[in-house]
Amino acid sequence: MYRENTICAPATAPGSGAIGVIRLSGPEAIAITDKIFRASGKSKTLVHQASHSVILGTIGLGSEIMDEVLVTVFRAPRSYTGEDVVEISCHGSPYNISGILQLLIKNGAVIASPGEFTQRAFLNGKMDLSQAEAVADLIAAGSEAAHRLAIDQMRGGFSAALELLREDLLKFVSLIELELDFGEEDVEFADRAELVKLVADVQSKITSLTMSFQTGNAIKNGIPVAIVGETNVGKSTLLNTLLRDDKAIVSEIHGTTRDTVEDTIILSGVIFRFIDTAGIRHTEDAIETLGIERTYTSIRKAQIVLFLADANASAEKINTRLDEIRKRIASQKLIVLLNKSDTVDKPILQKLKNNIRLKDHELFFFISARKKTGIDILEKKLVELSGINNVGNEGVVVTNMRHFEALVKAGESITRAAEGLKNKLPGDLLAQDIRECMHYLGEITGQISTDEILGNIFKTFCIGK
Amino acid sequence: MYRENTICAPATAPGSGAIGVIRLSGPEAIAITDKIFRASGKSKTLVHQASHSVILGTIGLGSEIMDEVLVTVFRAPRSYTGEDVVEISCHGSPYNISGILQLLIKNGAVIASPGEFTQRAFLNGKMDLSQAEAVADLIAAGSEAAHRLAIDQMRGGFSAALELLREDLLKFVSLIELELDFGEEDVEFADRAELVKLVADVQSKITSLTMSFQTGNAIKNGIPVAIVGETNVGKSTLLNTLLRDDKAIVSEIHGTTRDTVEDTIILSGVIFRFIDTAGIRHTEDAIETLGIERTYTSIRKAQIVLFLADANASAEKINTRLDEIRKRIASQKLIVLLNKSDTVDKPILQKLKNNIRLKDHELFFFISARKKTGIDILEKKLVELSGINNVGNEGVVVTNMRHFEALVKAGESITRAAEGLKNKLPGDLLAQDIRECMHYLGEITGQISTDEILGNIFKTFCIGK
Repeated sequence: MYRENTICAPATAPGSGAIGVIRLSGPEAIAITDKIFRASGKSKTLVHQASHSVILGTIGLGSEIMDEVLVTVFRAPRSYTGEDVVEISCHGSPYNISGILQLLIKNGAVIASPGEFTQRAFLNGKMDLSQAEAVADLIAAGSEAAHRLAIDQMRGGFSAALELLREDLLKFVSLIELELDFGEEDVEFADRAELVKLVADVQSKITSLTMSFQTGNAIKNGIPVAIVGETNVGKSTLLNTLLRDDKAIVSEIHGTTRDTVEDTIILSGVIFRFIDTAGIRHTEDAIETLGIERTYTSIRKAQIVLFLADANASAEKINTRLDEIRKRIASQKLIVLLNKSDTVDKPILQKLKNNIRLKDHELFFFISARKKTGIDILEKKLVELSGINNVGNEGVVVTNMRHFEALVKAGESITRAAEGLKNKLPGDLLAQDIRECMHYLGEITGQISTDEILGNIFKTFCIGK
Repeated sequence: MYRENTICAPATAPGSGAIGVIRLSGPEAIAITDKIFRASGKSKTLVHQASHSVILGTIGLGSEIMDEVLVTVFRAPRSYTGEDVVEISCHGSPYNISGILQLLIKNGAVIASPGEFTQRAFLNGKMDLSQAEAVADLIAAGSEAAHRLAIDQMRGGFSAALELLREDLLKFVSLIELELDFGEEDVEFADRAELVKLVADVQSKITSLTMSFQTGNAIKNGIPVAIVGETNVGKSTLLNTLLRDDKAIVSEIHGTTRDTVEDTIILSGVIFRFIDTAGIRHTEDAIETLGIERTYTSIRKAQIVLFLADANASAEKINTRLDEIRKRIASQKLIVLLNKSDTVDKPILQKLKNNIRLKDHELFFFISARKKTGIDILEKKLVELSGINNVGNEGVVVTNMRHFEALVKAGESITRAAEGLKNKLPGDLLAQDIRECMHYLGEITGQISTDEILGNIFKTFCIGK
C-alpha cells in the first residue's frame, strides 16, 4: 500500500443511467462503506463479507435512506488497485451519485484524482505503466483498430516485447561485466561476434517498434486527410460521398455528440478524419488567396492529401496546381483524383492522364464523386496507406508519444553501443550505453519512473479510473 | 417467469466512463454469457458460480479478446427482475460496450425495451407498479425533495398507505356482503354508524392523497415561476439575482448540460423553474403587444407569478397593470414586488404601498434586485408556497399523474358510497361502489393492470432499467 487514505469517485459515465457505480479504494474502503450501509435481511456487516461477493442493502445515515444499492467487496490484493476496493452500484441519477459520494466523504473518504485508481494499481504492482496507459486508451478507443491496440497493450503485449528486449540486453551486459571482473586477466568471455548479433537484433527490434508509431498514432487518433483543389471541382460532393452512411454508423457506435463524428469515417476499423474541410468548402465563396492559405493549413495538418481536379480542366492547369501543392507537401502522401470523369469521353480522359506529370509514390485515380464511381478503390487505398494491414499478428504497435520518445532514446543508446562494439571500445563503456538503453525501456513499463512522469500520465485519465 | 427470451442492455449512462455495466436477464442469461466469457485463473464456468458472486475474466470469441471484465451472477429469484441476471462490468468506452452487446446478441440475447428489466421485476412480483414507477422517478430526480419522494415511493411508502385503505374497504365490503347473505332475514350485521365512519375515513384519506398531488407534482417537475412586468423594471436583474451561485451548484450536482440548468434554482431542496423568461426579457426590444402576449403565455404556464414594478412608478400605473395581469390569472399565486426600492425614500415607498390595491392572498414585498435586498424573504415565501413544508413525516405525497387520476376516480366512487349510506341504499349497491373504489386503488399498485397501462408506464423508462 503506498497511501494511507481511502479514495472514492463515480466510475460510470456522467449523466443519467439505470445504474451508476461508485468505487472506493484504500485501507478504510470497507469500514467507511459499513458506516452508511445497512444490509437487507441479514445483519451482516461488510467487514465480515467474503471477497468478490455482492450484498443488497440501503445507503443512508440513521433512519434516513438515500438509496437501495448493491455493494461488492474486493479484498486486497485481489482487486483492481491491489487495495481493499468497494463498488457501490446505485440508482444512476447524478443527484443520487453525488449524494452518496458526499456521505462517503463525510465518513472519511477523499475524492480520487483523475487516474488515481489505476495509479494505485501500478504502484501496487498490479500492472506496469504501459498497461496502465492502455486502460485510458481503451476507454477512449472509438474504432475497432484503436480498441484492439489498446486491449493488446493492456493485456501486456507491449510489455512482453519490451521484456524480451531487456532480457537480451541483460544477457549482453552480464557477459560484458563478467569480463570486467576478470579484466586484469584480459579474458574475453563474450564472443564478440555473438555480441554484435545481439546488439543488431535489439537495434532492429527497437527500430521496428519506433517505426510502428506512425501507424499506431494514426490508428489511435484517426488519420488526418485533407481534400484540396480549386473551387467547384467537387470537394464537398466527394466528402459527402465518403461520409454517406458511415456517419450514421459512427454516431450509433459512439453515442457521442455530433461534433466528434462530423467528417469522420471508419474504413476497415481505421478512423479517417477530414480536417478543416469546412474551411476549404467555404473558399468557394471567398477570395482565392484566402482559399489557398486554408488549403496549405489543411495540408500541413494532414497525413494524406487528396488533390481533386476537374476532368474537364486542361492538363496544364492541373500540373500548375499540382506543382503548387507539392511545394507544401513534406511527408504527406499525395493522391491525385480526377473528378467528374463520367462527364468526359474515355479517350480524352486517357490523354489527359498521360499529360499529367506524376512524381514517384503519387497515386492517381479517375472518380466521379456524384456517380460514386472509383470511390471503393480510393477507400481501399486509404486503408492501405494507414498501415493497418502491416500490423501483423505478432506485431506490437506503439501508440503512445511517451513510449515513442523513450524508444527513440533507447535506439540512440543501442546505436552507440553498436558503434562502440565495431570500434572495439572497452566493455565498461559498452555496458554504460546498454544500461542507458535499458533505462529508457524501463521508463516505458515504469520500472524506472518519477513522480513527474506518473503525474503527467495519470492527470489525463478520467475520474474514477 | 413471464417471458422465454433473455434481454440485454447497457445499464450505465451513455458516453465514456471508467466502467460501463451491461445487464442481462432471462433464463439464458448465464448460459449466453458463458459462451463469450472465460474466467481468469480457474477454469470454472459461470453456470457453476454461486449467486451474488463476482468473477474476473475476459470477454471475446475464441482467441479474440474484446475486454477484461468482472461478471456478477444473480440467480433467480434473488435478483432485480426475479429472473437469472448477469451484470458485466467492462471498460466504459461506448465502442467497447456496443461491441460486447453485439456479441451477446449474436449468442442469443435480445436488446431490452425501455424499462423491460423493471417491467419483468413487476411481473415477477418483485415490486408493485407504484414502486416500479418510482424507480424511473428516482433516476430522474434532480433535487433533494424529488429524490426523497421517489425513494419513499420505491420503498413502498405509498403502497403501504393504499394497502391500509384497501383493508378498510375490504372490512366494509365484507360486513355488507355478510348482510346480503342473510338478506332475507333482514338482519343488519353492520353497524351503520360504524360504516359511515369507515367510509368518511377512507374518503378523507383519499382526498388528502389527491390534494398532495399539486405539491408532489411541483416537487417532481419543479415549480414554474413567471416574472412579469413592464420593460425596464428589472426583470432580468431579479432573475440573475435569484440564479446567482445556485446555478453553479445545480450544474455541479446534476452534471447535466447547461440547457437544463438554465434559469432553475433549488431552494430548500425544491426546484423552481423560471419559464419563458428569455421571451419576457426580449420584450424590452419588441413592440408592446408582443411583450404582453408573451407575458400572458408565461402566466398560463406558471404556478407562481412574480409581478415586478418599479418603485418609482405611480400607484395608478401599477394598479392598472395589476388589473390586466389578474384577468389572466387562474389558480396561480401572485406576488407583487416593488423593485428599485433602494432608490426611493421610505415615506414615499410606504405611501405607494398604501395606494396599491391588493386582493386577498396576494403577497407584497419591497425588493432591490440590484442591491439584493428583500430577496431572502422572497425566497422563503417561494419555498412556503411550494407546499414542501406541509409534507409531514407520515405524509405520503402523490407525484404521478396516473396515480392522481386513479385517486380522483376512487374518490368519486367512495363519495357515491357515502351518499348511498346516507340515503340508506341497499347493501349490494353500496358494495358495488366500494368494489369500484378498490378497483381504482388496485390500478395504482398494479393489482389491476392491463397491457396498455403497462405499456404506457414502461415506455417512458430509459433503456437498461
